[in-house]
Amino acid sequence: MGNENLTLLTDFYELTMMQGYYKNNSNDTVIFDVFYRNNPSGSGYAICAGLEQVIEYIKSIHFSKEDIAYLRSLNMFDEDFLNYLTDFKFTGDIHGVPEGTVVFPMEPLLKVIAPIMEAQLIETAVLNIINHQSLIATKASRVCYAAKGEPVMEFGLRRAQGPDAGTYGARAAVIGGCNGTSNVLAAKKFDVPALGTHAHSWIMSFDDEITAFREYAALYPNNATLLVDTYDTLRSGVPNAIKVFTELRDAGNMPKRYGIRLDSGDLAYLSKKARKMLDAAGFKEASIVASSDLDEYLIDSLKTQGAAINSWGVGTNLITSKDCPAFGGVYKLAAIKKDGKFIPKIKLSENPWKITNPGNKTVYRIYDKETGKIKADLISMADEKYSEDNPLKLFDPLATWKKTYLKAGTYTLREILKPIFKDGKCIYKSPSVMEIREYCLKEQDTLWDETRRLVNPHDVYVDLSNELYQLKNQLLDNININNLN
Amino acid sequence: MGNENLTLLTDFYELTMMQGYYKNNSNDTVIFDVFYRNNPSGSGYAICAGLEQVIEYIKSIHFSKEDIAYLRSLNMFDEDFLNYLTDFKFTGDIHGVPEGTVVFPMEPLLKVIAPIMEAQLIETAVLNIINHQSLIATKASRVCYAAKGEPVMEFGLRRAQGPDAGTYGARAAVIGGCNGTSNVLAAKKFDVPALGTHAHSWIMSFDDEITAFREYAALYPNNATLLVDTYDTLRSGVPNAIKVFTELRDAGNMPKRYGIRLDSGDLAYLSKKARKMLDAAGFKEASIVASSDLDEYLIDSLKTQGAAINSWGVGTNLITSKDCPAFGGVYKLAAIKKDGKFIPKIKLSENPWKITNPGNKTVYRIYDKETGKIKADLISMADEKYSEDNPLKLFDPLATWKKTYLKAGTYTLREILKPIFKDGKCIYKSPSVMEIREYCLKEQDTLWDETRRLVNPHDVYVDLSNELYQLKNQLLDNININNLN
Repeated sequence: MGNENLTLLTDFYELTMMQGYYKNNSNDTVIFDVFYRNNPSGSGYAICAGLEQVIEYIKSIHFSKEDIAYLRSLNMFDEDFLNYLTDFKFTGDIHGVPEGTVVFPMEPLLKVIAPIMEAQLIETAVLNIINHQSLIATKASRVCYAAKGEPVMEFGLRRAQGPDAGTYGARAAVIGGCNGTSNVLAAKKFDVPALGTHAHSWIMSFDDEITAFREYAALYPNNATLLVDTYDTLRSGVPNAIKVFTELRDAGNMPKRYGIRLDSGDLAYLSKKARKMLDAAGFKEASIVASSDLDEYLIDSLKTQGAAINSWGVGTNLITSKDCPAFGGVYKLAAIKKDGKFIPKIKLSENPWKITNPGNKTVYRIYDKETGKIKADLISMADEKYSEDNPLKLFDPLATWKKTYLKAGTYTLREILKPIFKDGKCIYKSPSVMEIREYCLKEQDTLWDETRRLVNPHDVYVDLSNELYQLKNQLLDNININNLN
Repeated sequence: MGNENLTLLTDFYELTMMQGYYKNNSNDTVIFDVFYRNNPSGSGYAICAGLEQVIEYIKSIHFSKEDIAYLRSLNMFDEDFLNYLTDFKFTGDIHGVPEGTVVFPMEPLLKVIAPIMEAQLIETAVLNIINHQSLIATKASRVCYAAKGEPVMEFGLRRAQGPDAGTYGARAAVIGGCNGTSNVLAAKKFDVPALGTHAHSWIMSFDDEITAFREYAALYPNNATLLVDTYDTLRSGVPNAIKVFTELRDAGNMPKRYGIRLDSGDLAYLSKKARKMLDAAGFKEASIVASSDLDEYLIDSLKTQGAAINSWGVGTNLITSKDCPAFGGVYKLAAIKKDGKFIPKIKLSENPWKITNPGNKTVYRIYDKETGKIKADLISMADEKYSEDNPLKLFDPLATWKKTYLKAGTYTLREILKPIFKDGKCIYKSPSVMEIREYCLKEQDTLWDETRRLVNPHDVYVDLSNELYQLKNQLLDNININNLN
């Protein structure tokens, strides 16, 4: 998506609605919230990502002459509206959760306050970017959790859903905890480590395996990680690798980093056998990298089996978030400004938890003061004020009898939505990807282990303030009276 | 991916291997095959797509000064190699299966014949593009099959894995049978229909639903498809839509196309009820569009239940191929040229069907002459000649006792791999996306119904010629002798 004009990366109905607002002279300022309803992959949390690309997209919105000519050719749009588009730019405010923050269902990740025509145009691209990167960052966080601090390399470019999915997916994977990527374009673009050594084709291009190993080790004396499964891992690959390491040691040329990579077969069995063979030959420092259709569950299982793997290359299952390839972020109207005042709006559903939260809101994160762990999140109206010096009463918005009282001094508060755009101007500077990665590691430390575990995690409470809860119920009552036949 | 330089869209190990070949002066010409081992989503076939983007990518490969500077900064590459990259371009041959062709496991979709350094560099991007678009085209073909010829609209941009996944995914979805997309950028780029009307936010931005409907219908007299589920489908949405249609009819302004869209709830029940209400009011021509987490199985089930839906908007499940979000295309070395002659190469595996097919190959498709349906595909050596005037003996490469004899005159033959690049020059002109869609519809007609069905389809045989089969077994025997300790 680098240099391409993404202004038309929008659903067609955004444009037909925009023309509708244009013709009705109804360009009221509105509030749209981006939020999601379920954590992906059965996770207890998600990692928010993509804000930097949202900022780039918003900054560069403009309808080119070519775009206008295309829209004209559809015979759906009038000249006065097309004229309006020619000068289009985003003039609104955006608040957002910084990338790498842990987030939970129902809370706004992004809040757009803008004239409705502008807010509507950007809906689709904003969702596309946030949904994709948050999905992959969350998956990476789970995979890295399973690897218990051992390095995880993102290796999925060839199976990613197109070039952007590979490149922005690699970005999100590093945010979520990966220590680098095989994708050179992503490594360059985001200044993250480029990783990898050689493929089976390298081995096959030589007359025999040992020559291929010898040549590779001679070429890259800093990192001789040899792929041992081209012909037969234990009968050919590992013995040949040991021969080459022995030659290097005897010649006084031991590489700084060296080891083997397993890319097929029974990784538990092969890694333990290979470890013994390497150790017996005196190569206790040799790393064993595994990379064969891994995901968080397989890594967890390999750990349980005592596999002797200390570095993980994860491809398809991470870059596509295979068990859950979509993050369900939505973009819902929360308020419309009439006569200088925001009128809250609500979207009904037959499922109570699918009903949207109305009005101009913000999100407070509440931490246990002693442990620094998250106690709950609180969605409140934007103008409500909270102070750590007061006690705080929380209640479950669907089961209101479930209450929690927090004494003053036992908790800390942090507003997680930050100002990103003000009057169309970006007032936020994105950190580097490696800085976001560091921040994200700290963020994950604020989760209880019960929320991080891979299966059946404990849900973090996302409560509504009393004011928001009352407003929501009032609107629901009114809709029943006014709108139904 | 439009204007961006994708030369670095490659795995890091491609570059480390390239430098290895460079330093060893071993830039032999090689053959790599792109093929896959399993149809996605339990399908009986796949639809090949992405060739046009592969061509664009290959044509535009060049290392910019910035790319070279980045690679230099990694302290892994020597100046002589970086110098070589400065002048890099692809000089080889590529044969490929035209987009929209139905394809089966194990057969080459693309064959790259080029100096190994060039063939290696392009591996990752070629796989990325072919894997993504073939995945989505295949999924779209299944969804459209379930819809039994009724229009299917691609609506998934907001849930796609990044901008490219949305845009090239839309392209592939149209190739697979969708009649258009909501993605305006994709519609413009590939000259396919842009589709859509309005969202819930349009309804919510007015004081009441009927005003929103009235305004929309007045604005777009050619297509008044009204979204009826914002408040209550049967008590509010459908009655209000009928009121507006009645007003338009009374005023003599009946829209050319009109109808309702259901986006939530029980689609079988709601569509049947809505159909009755519309019919009773005299709106038998009103279409009923459904769009709520649909996939091929849900559409099939709705058809079985007699749902009164005649147009389908499919989002997340199509644009991510949710039940199977990766197409497993691989890129395997098949031969190396030494002294002017291709030496066939093979990659072992513990699973017999994962062993690669060696040598310079091509693919013949064999049709039943009477029905025009596919009987089998035959992978042969590129220089083998077949004639429809001779009888043809086929056998299963894993169970060689399974044989089929085709009499002369009962079958027709077609070589499906076509020349795409010759000596680095593109000699193929991609058809338009709508032309590919037409071709793909015809291609799908060559499949037996048993192969098209959604669950437990009949597999199409992909056989090996006797010459290829013998070569493969000979190489397997030699490897056992030469490479293992």
